[in-house]
Amino acid sequence: MLTLTSDFGSPYPAAMKGVIRRHTDAELIDVGHDLPRGDPRAAAFWLRFVLPEFPPAVHCAVIDPGVGTGRDALVIRAGSHVVVAPDNGLAMPPARALATDETDVDVWAIDAADPESATFHGRDVFAPTAARVHEAISDESGGSPDEASRSDVADALAEMDDLSRASDPVDLVFPDPTVERDDSGGVAAVDGEVLAIDRFGNVITNVPGELLEDRDWVRVDGDLTPVVETFGAVDPGERLVTVGSHGHVECDVNDGRGDGAFDMRPGDSVRFVADNVSV
Amino acid sequence: MLTLTSDFGSPYPAAMKGVIRRHTDAELIDVGHDLPRGDPRAAAFWLRFVLPEFPPAVHCAVIDPGVGTGRDALVIRAGSHVVVAPDNGLAMPPARALATDETDVDVWAIDAADPESATFHGRDVFAPTAARVHEAISDESGGSPDEASRSDVADALAEMDDLSRASDPVDLVFPDPTVERDDSGGVAAVDGEVLAIDRFGNVITNVPGELLEDRDWVRVDGDLTPVVETFGAVDPGERLVTVGSHGHVECDVNDGRGDGAFDMRPGDSVRFVADNVSV
Amino acid sequence: MLTLTSDFGSPYPAAMKGVIRRHTDAELIDVGHDLPRGDPRAAAFWLRFVLPEFPPAVHCAVIDPGVGTGRDALVIRAGSHVVVAPDNGLAMPPARALATDETDVDVWAIDAADPESATFHGRDVFAPTAARVHEAISDESGGSPDEASRSDVADALAEMDDLSRASDPVDLVFPDPTVERDDSGGVAAVDGEVLAIDRFGNVITNVPGELLEDRDWVRVDGDLTPVVETFGAVDPGERLVTVGSHGHVECDVNDGRGDGAFDMRPGDSVRFVADNVSV
Repeated sequence: MLTLTSDFGSPYPAAMKGVIRRHTDAELIDVGHDLPRGDPRAAAFWLRFVLPEFPPAVHCAVIDPGVGTGRDALVIRAGSHVVVAPDNGLAMPPARALATDETDVDVWAIDAADPESATFHGRDVFAPTAARVHEAISDESGGSPDEASRSDVADALAEMDDLSRASDPVDLVFPDPTVERDDSGGVAAVDGEVLAIDRFGNVITNVPGELLEDRDWVRVDGDLTPVVETFGAVDPGERLVTVGSHGHVECDVNDGRGDGAFDMRPGDSVRFVADNVSV
Repeated sequence: MLTLTSDFGSPYPAAMKGVIRRHTDAELIDVGHDLPRGDPRAAAFWLRFVLPEFPPAVHCAVIDPGVGTGRDALVIRAGSHVVVAPDNGLAMPPARALATDETDVDVWAIDAADPESATFHGRDVFAPTAARVHEAISDESGGSPDEASRSDVADALAEMDDLSRASDPVDLVFPDPTVERDDSGGVAAVDGEVLAIDRFGNVITNVPGELLEDRDWVRVDGDLTPVVETFGAVDPGERLVTVGSHGHVECDVNDGRGDGAFDMRPGDSVRFVADNVSV
Repeated sequence: MLTLTSDFGSPYPAAMKGVIRRHTDAELIDVGHDLPRGDPRAAAFWLRFVLPEFPPAVHCAVIDPGVGTGRDALVIRAGSHVVVAPDNGLAMPPARALATDETDVDVWAIDAADPESATFHGRDVFAPTAARVHEAISDESGGSPDEASRSDVADALAEMDDLSRASDPVDLVFPDPTVERDDSGGVAAVDGEVLAIDRFGNVITNVPGELLEDRDWVRVDGDLTPVVETFGAVDPGERLVTVGSHGHVECDVNDGRGDGAFDMRPGDSVRFVADNVSV
């Protein structure tokens, strides 16, 4: 199985699929091609969320604002998964989520000949490399990558001629929120950060859901906001705070856009203050 | 074969596909993931139009404004097809279209353990259930659901431990238009309703195309409008009435948006009056 | 393998896939379904760019502003590929790119019975024809179209009952730019045309990249603009000229939209004048 992720929209990813079909008949699954443009950080967030749902696979992820510059192209083993991506940090958070521990990640650089185009390495470098990695793993394990063992995958990569170990990949770490406790050890306030905005305008923060456990209300940058389990718990157009399917605190609007209502963008800071009011 | 429909946009459906791939290698076909948000009625309209084109399959459809509330999750057999969907009515119109008659529909509720997330039952409930239904049918029929008989499908569902018969699913019925006849029995006027707006802004009504047969003009809410077979029969920017591929009367604009020009939204009423003018 | 291209958005293409699955289990790959609406010229540009990346396949492409009029429906062999499309020119530029030379293209018309709908020939004519062509080639070659020889493909089409040779298909030729040379034979100026705008607002012209080789600056309709290899070579919001992955000169904006900044639309003329300034 080979998953594909990019910010290319349509129809560029089809060119990647055509190239891949010249190398392998691996099943192709699109993670998405409308990820935020040129934003490795958003890509890292979404891939860390989505890729661990898959059985072992090769994941080709091209969000590549540095295309045409000297940035490396990487092949990263994490557990029995492989992520093929530019060296801009996007692959490291999902790789850590796919690995059992820190030592379970190998990073390789692709010794690519000069690609045909300066701007479409998705087609000219990443897609064919991902296809060849998929074939190498299949050859090593005698089956599909879905069933390959960790050592099959590691051995397959070690035997590929055009990969060399990379020692210092660009990394990207999502900041931890800062938690203030009250006298009894409860959560008094949390300073977090906006990680991503989804298609619905939901504002996804770096604050773990458990920090809001058992709260009915919280102040978001000063404004009292209900903490609910479902959007329908407030009227259409009303603001709410909830825990998303990724386990993070979100600032949303029922039947509306949270990014507009809360005036928040990726990278913005956000402060949650406990408020034990009854309203 | 397993089809997927949602209003999740991207990349959430990829998480569903990852989960499915842990259970089955059934072929996955996207019906669409940009259906109108939180609108079971629009979903019912589109699924009733699209699903009957498929050979027997398992259809997972998650448009779910009630996620996290107590609404049931359903598995519905209709003919040799199965629809897996929340209990909000969206599945019933397509189920009736897939069945040979009213008795050809079995409705089951999923006895789900508490799902991992309160907001992403697509990943945590519907996708794994659809995958397991697909496997159960394959086991029962000794092949793919495409070739399973009605009784194979019925038996497979009856043998699943976590399904129990549901007696009173939420239903959703598209209203019939009201037809006024003239003295000779011809159609004088039709009072209909807007069912859906497509991506192009075409306004799809509940009025069957045959009611406009052999007309050249019709008054739409009072305004004389040409009845044409193709958009190109009027100039760009001009309004028109035509019969869409679903067999329903549409109010459209050539190279423009019908919803804007006619000021119509889903649920609006619309009156067509016969007008035998020659212009 | 069967690729699908349209301007239908969602969920109409799923109806085509359902129909195809009643005829063949050929792998389905979407080229894209959000191509510019009703624009065979843009479709021709994109398909000429994307289809040659694929191994031999059947390509179903429905951008069809003339649906319901008397336009023919075509099946075109080009090399070992087949393009199934309306007769509006969209298929000819990609067919020439897929063929080895001008004689390597056969054009057939589909003798379609009256299709069920006047507006959805994608479902009623093109999808089932593409599926049947795929099956005919598989039968002829004893394998998948990916491995069929040119003569297998030619023979398979010749044996289909409902195809007849078409002698005069609508063609569509992308204009060549006009080049003015200076006294030493270098490029002094190029008059080109805008072929397409991509999702990012990048303005793709008909000017081959090599005409700008070794330039640092060029005047675009009078305005001095840097010629760069990567978007990142200019500041966000700044205009640039570069050579896209298709080998054509593009007028773009780093982290912005070129179509807005340069005020250009498909079909517009654009003049590039050499300027050996040092700025």
